[in-house]
Parts: sequence; structure tokens; C-alpha cells
Amino acid sequence: MTATDRGASLPPEQLDALVTVLDMVRSGEACTRPELGRRSGLGRTVVTQRVGHLIDSGLVEEGSLGPSTGGRAPRQLRFRAEAGAVLVAELGATSIGVGITDLAGRLLHHSERPWDIAAGPEASLEQVEASFDELRAKPDIPKVWGIGIGVPGPVEMATGRPVAPPIMPGWDRYPVRDRLGAQYGVPVCVDNEVNAMALGEYRAGLGQGLRDLIYLKLGTGIGAGLISGGRPHRGAQGCAGDVGHVAVVDDTDVVCRCGNVGCLEALAGGAALARDATTAATGGQSPLLAERLAAQGHLKAEDVARAAEYGDPVSVELLTRSGRLVGTMLATLVNFYNPSLVVIGGGVAASGDLLLSAIRQAVYRRSLPLATRNLRIARSPLDDRAGLMGAGFMVVDELFSTARIGTWIADGSPAGRPELTA
Amino acid sequence: MTATDRGASLPPEQLDALVTVLDMVRSGEACTRPELGRRSGLGRTVVTQRVGHLIDSGLVEEGSLGPSTGGRAPRQLRFRAEAGAVLVAELGATSIGVGITDLAGRLLHHSERPWDIAAGPEASLEQVEASFDELRAKPDIPKVWGIGIGVPGPVEMATGRPVAPPIMPGWDRYPVRDRLGAQYGVPVCVDNEVNAMALGEYRAGLGQGLRDLIYLKLGTGIGAGLISGGRPHRGAQGCAGDVGHVAVVDDTDVVCRCGNVGCLEALAGGAALARDATTAATGGQSPLLAERLAAQGHLKAEDVARAAEYGDPVSVELLTRSGRLVGTMLATLVNFYNPSLVVIGGGVAASGDLLLSAIRQAVYRRSLPLATRNLRIARSPLDDRAGLMGAGFMVVDELFSTARIGTWIADGSPAGRPELTA
Repeated sequence: MTATDRGASLPPEQLDALVTVLDMVRSGEACTRPELGRRSGLGRTVVTQRVGHLIDSGLVEEGSLGPSTGGRAPRQLRFRAEAGAVLVAELGATSIGVGITDLAGRLLHHSERPWDIAAGPEASLEQVEASFDELRAKPDIPKVWGIGIGVPGPVEMATGRPVAPPIMPGWDRYPVRDRLGAQYGVPVCVDNEVNAMALGEYRAGLGQGLRDLIYLKLGTGIGAGLISGGRPHRGAQGCAGDVGHVAVVDDTDVVCRCGNVGCLEALAGGAALARDATTAATGGQSPLLAERLAAQGHLKAEDVARAAEYGDPVSVELLTRSGRLVGTMLATLVNFYNPSLVVIGGGVAASGDLLLSAIRQAVYRRSLPLATRNLRIARSPLDDRAGLMGAGFMVVDELFSTARIGTWIADGSPAGRPELTA
Repeated sequence: MTATDRGASLPPEQLDALVTVLDMVRSGEACTRPELGRRSGLGRTVVTQRVGHLIDSGLVEEGSLGPSTGGRAPRQLRFRAEAGAVLVAELGATSIGVGITDLAGRLLHHSERPWDIAAGPEASLEQVEASFDELRAKPDIPKVWGIGIGVPGPVEMATGRPVAPPIMPGWDRYPVRDRLGAQYGVPVCVDNEVNAMALGEYRAGLGQGLRDLIYLKLGTGIGAGLISGGRPHRGAQGCAGDVGHVAVVDDTDVVCRCGNVGCLEALAGGAALARDATTAATGGQSPLLAERLAAQGHLKAEDVARAAEYGDPVSVELLTRSGRLVGTMLATLVNFYNPSLVVIGGGVAASGDLLLSAIRQAVYRRSLPLATRNLRIARSPLDDRAGLMGAGFMVVDELFSTARIGTWIADGSPAGRPELTA
């Protein structure tokens, strides 16, 4: 491949400088050549050459004249986020979300549809690919430079394959990355969906500018994504954040889908709320829930939230208990991990303030004062877009990394960038 | 300062290459110039120049001829770990350990004495300084290049001051780093002692080559140190790992020194073991412990361990309960953090295999199979040297970082390195 050959001719020192300059322009930290020189410590010639590469490759453009500091006013530089696009997908247990972002992680289009992940990798990825093709066909969509995908299970980062995912039958070691890579001819990043959500909140949501945060997803299941010192913490097997099966209650006989008893997820997750609400409805404890059950044929966590808003005591109690259990577990994590932010996302988190305040109360009661002094616990503002945006950032950061950029950016050539061949 | 001026003349690109070359020689990854070129991707001229700098500065020396690959055999390069020394100290709740390491983190001398941290910073640091001066006066000790110190509380990394440390009365915001820096005129690193222990195990103990580990100290108190992706995870306030006050039991009236009830430390730490052993001894449940209490006037966790070895049922039960509580908490951390290694250190950990197997049993019972598939739980082989060695690595890594190396390594000059002025 010629792009690789040309890229390989740039020595590592030059690639480091290229990435440094690009990162500063991308983040807006420095927008003129003199500023880039001051901030990076790179020499004037090096800055000029690297900016030249970036302009030639179409990633940066010159804009208006900036403020002069005495001599000739320097030209403003602008990152061309519209130069390329990233296809992103988020596979949940019961839905598929797809979207397309620009190179700054902004979501240009996105949509979601119900889907059963247990349909297996072939059918699920065909679904994803069909949606991707629709997105690419929309007007004014730039060339696709990469693909990012989140799945509801642990992923081996080196190969981009799910590993022993408990709720993804048929997906164990399926080559997700290789399949999409072969299909589209661009770099593909695969990660756990909750890690992608954490990255989305870190880069574009409440976590901007922070270093250590926990994203806690409360949906049908419960899981967490971690950012440590500004980088994702995935753990040794890529299964960090798997807190749904932490034991929170001793004296219970509720058996979890993992086979253990007393698991957080089996007592406080969305499925647990729906189960207990159904019991209350059929047992005559809650006329409101019974009415809803009769009308719909089933109950979901959202119904509990709505009934609680109407003052249904059973629903208020269910949400409070759920929040207290989640908060008690979270207090342990806060002491251990000392984050500055805990973002609560997922379907159950959308249940209103009752759940959130029960969580907060339990955390503040059981965490050390120093750990909670500047701790913020808040609902995800990005909501269901966090995972798609995070998947986009995974890809963009990979494309613009020292390790990758040399394989496609060429010395002065705009032809080296990755492009969809189809 | 001339060293700074000279160092500042090296542009960042050259410093990066300098650090890359030094790291490879230090770690043994590459030991000849051609090998350095191949592994780093740096050009021949750059490698030759940087190696020249390092030889001139006394950090690297040329050794014997290496194996030839056809042409002239390349010279072996060796990192001169003996070129400098690092003074290290570990302040615990009831002891001070001091030592001196070479630039590879090897402990040349070390000693420990009982000390009450509540004596405050002035008296404690005078004690440390007196010990440092003794160590420096020993024969064949190289010049001191830096100081590393671990303290039993959270530390603000930017300033090197303890922040609201619960068991260090009088130390809040005391300028530990500035005091030692002014006294010795060398770079000083201050961190939590458990973080230093975790770093010691990571670099020189069981953690070598791993990326994610937890060091759990079971002493009078209980605390953890974390390595995330090869780097210390300190948390937003520097108090990550503070797991002694996690709630592990609901139905108890044992009040912890933090004021809460049900804390792990108050039920399973060294002080808790000593307390419960004393109750058993005076209550007539354990003749062995009663005998020991009569002989010594008090009981310590070590006495429980020894009595358990002699088969004392009360002591066996106390250690098993302690291990079970620690293991239950640890299971949550294993699910959340997914480490590949948990190292158990501290005085109580030395209690023999009973405690360790109770911990293991609880972890494997309550952690997910994927998280424990390749998990190792083991006692610290470095024992009480982990913290001192970790403090040494903190300093060495700082000295040889891109940010620091430019302030003291000169372009071809051996005079730029930091030296004790006294």
C-alpha cells in the first residue's frame, strides 16, 4: 500500500511533532504557528513543516488573520472536522444504535431500533452494516475514515473480539473488528459499550477537563466505565466495571442470571424493578401499576418511574430501595477509586430525581469526607448519545495517534488518508 | 542555575529521544546502538548523539563488544545505576523506615525503627533527616540525586503536601516536599505510602510486566494502592485506595475511629484482631492467648497469627473472619477494577496462609469468572521493602522523565546532574 510506504518514511520524531501540532489545533489549545511554537516548545521550522503537512492532507486550513502582537499578524489555523466521518454503532442487550460523527466527535445523524443481541453476530452486524450504508448515502456526508462500535460485553482490545460475554450468545471470540475492517477497508475500534459511554461523557459531556471519573449505567443490567488519569481503564481481561454482580445483600433468595444470590443487578437493575412492580401489581399492592399492567400486558422500569411521579407509594419505595443499593455499592467504589465525577446513565437513570437522590444519600453516608469533598454525582446529559459519541472519539483518537498517523498521513500528500474504497 | 540553562537549550524533540534511548538502556530492552535504532525507529545520527550525551553525563558506559551480525561488532552499552543514589523513607502510623537505593531502584541499605507519626512533622522529619545523614555517611555511597518519601495519608501531588490525613495530626498541608528540597537541594517526591508499595511491587516484585494491579495493605489500618495501565492511579483528591472504611457488615455496633459503624478496618484490621483477641483472652475462651496476654501485658495481631499456628480455635476463627471480610470487599474491587494481580502486604498479611486462603475463597466465590480467570492473589514477596523501593522508583522515573531531564542533563556536560550541595 503506497500510503503506508510514504507514511513510513516519516521518522518517529516527526510523527510525534505532527501529533502534538494536530492535537493542539484540534483542541483549540493553539491556533497560530507562533502559539504552537510557544506551547509545544517545537522550533519554528518544525512547526511550519508540520502545519504544512496537515494543510496538504486536508486536516487543517488557514483562516483569517489573528491578532498581531506587533509584527505581521499570524494566520489562524482551523481543524477541518468535516474532512472525514466516522461510522459508529452501539449494540445494547435489546437495541442497536447507529450514527455518524465528524472528526471532532460531533454526531451528524443517529437513530436507534429495538434488536435482540442474542440474534448473534451475523444477523446483528448485517443490521449494523445496512444502517451504515443508509447513513453513508445521506447528502453531504464526508468520506468515512473509521468505524467505532460498542458491544454489551468484555472485549479483547488486541483483536477486537468479544470474550466470554455473558449476555451475547454466539458472540464469543467473533472477529467483529476483522469483519468490519474487511468490509469497509478502514480502521475499526471495538470496545465495551459502557467504556464508550464513559469516554463520551469524558470528552463531550460532564467529564470535560476532569481526569478520574466513573460512568455507571443503570439499565436492564448494571455496569460501569472508568476513566483513570484521562485514559480508559479497561482492566486485565477488558472486563473492568462489571459491578452488576457485586453482592449487596446477604439475606435474600433472589437468584441472579449469573447463578449467584444477592447481586446488585438482580435487586436494583431495570429487570428487577419490572419484576417487583409486576409482583406488586398482581398482588394488589398498587392499583396504579395494576392498571398499567392490564393496559400493556407487561411492566418496565419506566412504568415504575412514571407511577412514582404520580405518588404511587410502592413505586416510590422500589426506586428508593434500588437507589440505596446502588449507592451503597457506589460508596465502596468512591472510596477505592476517588473519582471527581460519577455520571449515572442508562434507562433506569432517566427515572427522575428520586432514584438519584437515594443514590447520593447512600454515597455521602458511607464515603470518606475527603473522597466526597469535590465529588459530583449527576445524570448523563448526553443520555443515549454518550455511547455513540464515545465510539467516535475512540476512532478519532486512534486515527490521530502516533502509532497510526504514520500509516496514512503522507509527506505532503493528500492521498494518504484512509478512505472507503466502496 | 547553569544546569537548567544548558538543559533548556535541548529542544523537546531531542529530550524525547534522550528519554527513549535512556529508558531502553535502563530496562535492558536494547543494549547496542544498532539495536537502539531498530527498536526506537530513531535515525543513526540521533542515536549516536543521544548515547554520546548519556555517556558524557555518566549515566551510560560502553562495555565489551557485543555479538557481531556480520560487520564490526557493536559495543554493549550499560546503564550506570551506581552513578547516583536516592534517599527513601516510609512513614507508617507506628514506624519510620529509611533506606538508600541506586538509580535502578535497588536498596543498598535500609533500616526501620518504631515511631509515632502523631509526633508531628517537625520531629518526624528531623528523625528522617538524621537517618538520611547516617546513610549518606556510609562508605561507597554515590552522590544523592533525589529523595522519595511515603506517608500514611493522602498527598496533594502538585505540592507534595499531606491533605487532611486522618491519622497524621499536625501534618495537614505541611510542606514536606519543600522542606526536604530546601534542605538537600535535590528533587523530592512525596506520595501515600501504599501507593509507593504498589509501585514497588509493580516494578520490582510480583507485578513486573503486568499492567493492572491492586496492592492491599493489611496492617493496623487497611488501605490499597492501584496501578492502572502501568501507571499509579491516585484519584481526584489523591485518596484512591482508601478502602478501610468500606461498610462490610450491617448488624454490628463496633464503632470505627472514623465514627461510622461496620467499617472493614474496625472489624478486620490489625487493631481489630488485637482487640478481639484480648476480649477472648480475658473472657477465658482462649488459654493460649490469655497466657500470652499475661506475659506481654498486651496482644497484637502477630500473637493471633502465632496462636493460630498452634491450633488455637479462637485465633483460627478470628483470622478466618478477617480474611472473609477482606475477601468480600476485595471481590467488589476485582469485579470493578479487573486487576491481573492482587498483592497482599502489611503486618497482618504476614500472619500465614490461613488469612490468605480465607481471602482467596471469598474473592473466588463472589467475583465473575472472567475477572478471576487469570487473577493471582499472593502475599508481597518484597514485604516491608516494597514501600522503600517504590519511593525510589518514584524519584528515578521523575528524574529521567522528559519534563525533568532537560533541567539537569546538559548537552555533553557531566556537570548538569543534580547533586547534594551539602
